[in-house]
Amino acid sequence: MGPKYVLREEIFEQPRAIAATIAAEATKVKETAEELRRRDVHMVIIAGRGSSDNAAIFAKYLFESYNRWPVALAAPSLYTLYKSPPRLQGTLVIAVSQSGESVDILEVTREARRQGACTLAITNEPHSPLAGEAAHVLLSHAGRERSIAATKTYTTQLTLFSMLSAELCQDEEMWAAIRTLPTEIEKALSLEERLRRYAGDYRHLKRCLVISRGYNYATAFEIALKIKETSYILAQPYSAADFLHGPIAIVEPGLAVIMVAPRGRSFANLMEVAKRLRERGVDLIVLSDSEEMLSVATTPVHIALQLPEALTPLPFAVLGQLFAFHLAVAKGFDPDHPRELRKITITE
Amino acid sequence: MGPKYVLREEIFEQPRAIAATIAAEATKVKETAEELRRRDVHMVIIAGRGSSDNAAIFAKYLFESYNRWPVALAAPSLYTLYKSPPRLQGTLVIAVSQSGESVDILEVTREARRQGACTLAITNEPHSPLAGEAAHVLLSHAGRERSIAATKTYTTQLTLFSMLSAELCQDEEMWAAIRTLPTEIEKALSLEERLRRYAGDYRHLKRCLVISRGYNYATAFEIALKIKETSYILAQPYSAADFLHGPIAIVEPGLAVIMVAPRGRSFANLMEVAKRLRERGVDLIVLSDSEEMLSVATTPVHIALQLPEALTPLPFAVLGQLFAFHLAVAKGFDPDHPRELRKITITE
Repeated sequence: MGPKYVLREEIFEQPRAIAATIAAEATKVKETAEELRRRDVHMVIIAGRGSSDNAAIFAKYLFESYNRWPVALAAPSLYTLYKSPPRLQGTLVIAVSQSGESVDILEVTREARRQGACTLAITNEPHSPLAGEAAHVLLSHAGRERSIAATKTYTTQLTLFSMLSAELCQDEEMWAAIRTLPTEIEKALSLEERLRRYAGDYRHLKRCLVISRGYNYATAFEIALKIKETSYILAQPYSAADFLHGPIAIVEPGLAVIMVAPRGRSFANLMEVAKRLRERGVDLIVLSDSEEMLSVATTPVHIALQLPEALTPLPFAVLGQLFAFHLAVAKGFDPDHPRELRKITITE
Repeated sequence: MGPKYVLREEIFEQPRAIAATIAAEATKVKETAEELRRRDVHMVIIAGRGSSDNAAIFAKYLFESYNRWPVALAAPSLYTLYKSPPRLQGTLVIAVSQSGESVDILEVTREARRQGACTLAITNEPHSPLAGEAAHVLLSHAGRERSIAATKTYTTQLTLFSMLSAELCQDEEMWAAIRTLPTEIEKALSLEERLRRYAGDYRHLKRCLVISRGYNYATAFEIALKIKETSYILAQPYSAADFLHGPIAIVEPGLAVIMVAPRGRSFANLMEVAKRLRERGVDLIVLSDSEEMLSVATTPVHIALQLPEALTPLPFAVLGQLFAFHLAVAKGFDPDHPRELRKITITE
């Protein structure tokens, strides 16, 4: 079996962490939703870095489509370096940071309070500076995350965003689906052996693209980041739509592309891109719950999901985590100690 | 001198195109600004694809810091595929498309009108469907853009955004600086011979990163896109801050990094990243107006600019265009006919 890795342990803790988060935070989610209704929030600004920024992309699609709030991602440098932030009255400012110590994310929250905006922190650390600064706090119950590559804090952040969205629109169906997330994540974990084998096949990979669209646009970013962090591969995320506007020119036979392609509204667009890529001789790894989509793949990874499309980013991210972890091991790297990285990155 | 390329001709048309845009659109910019003040717009949503999306990133930093409007980039799939767009009342929705024919960008504009939001199109084609749909239209006076890689339409889009921003905050200093843009762009064009020589040195380049921060974050995206489109190199853009949150792990001796690093508020942060990259043996191409920053470079490209930092993205983008063009030629590619691309990309 080889050495035990912290990263792998934490990947497998996710069903438990998500179940704990749902159980522990449901009441606070309700209270926060009530307060947001009272305050008549008309837009949302979300600040995060790294995986937390990818969670913000997920939240943007969720809040815009289910809750009809326009969502902007914060440009932290305008708060820290340029000292000229936008007006935040009437907005909900959400800060996402697993450690709660990111200086720039904290500064966005401080500015929001100064301007009288509603503030919410999503963090794994109840005693962090960020948790102390925000008016509302929703906690990931992930336990300490020791691995540098974020996994269980990412999927619990997504869980908290989903809970808040479902509560705000009183969507009982979505709530029911959220409660099945631990089981759906188990399905992804059960595919480890296949992903380990595939990772071995791709151990000489030097660069790749990760493509998706819609709700899983965030998943493309998160999988690309996991691969970069642990395997030092230049992995670049794309929306399938943007990809046709220029970047498709870089495609050459043998290039590897990972596609996150669930059934749902983006299916036809993703299928079109998948077919064009295969015609160009691309090595196509497809993560999907659709047999039709998988039939186009060089390397098909089938997962039978029973989730609304908006929640599929959680199990798909887990498939990407497992692939990235085993790719690092196959390449002879130590995924627990990525070079150049520390757990908490301080940027102003 | 070799063959005449359309792309190179259009790069050199930029001072004229920008001067024409400033002269022709100043009145319409004033009228649009007055209407926006009357309508009490409290936030902006911008939709664009490819280079137009990079222009949207530029506008986000400009409007948030100078005009204090929160700015969100649209997620077009929510309007087209998912049919569940956010509420747009009280927002200004800006659609950016050189051709004015992008189906999804047009659909965002239609939805904005349906919801009674204020709409503005920025396009190079006065008779396009987009120009017909939006309540306000600001035109690039770039002449027809024949090259597939956008150059003069990109910098004229940036010019129009700058004019609108300056007019909205009655910033005479900014207006004066905008009028010097043609001259400042000439400075970038005069560096062609040096950039041609450097491009020759890098003709074996297979992958690179493009890093900046703040106002030039958009420039990193645009330079990376030009390189991908014309030279098929996997060029990946990063904010210097995000880069330290994970992606720095991929850095290896010999990796090429292009850094856009003007004097200004992001200088210290960019210098820190530049030094870390050089310590790791990175081949660092620096575009800057600061001798101090250039002293850290492997390949320094000095340009003496007299512009507020917020307007430096225009001449820096031109340096990137010239480098990308000559890189394609040095690699033996035809930059006028990038493989796989057509001028107008239709995505739903």
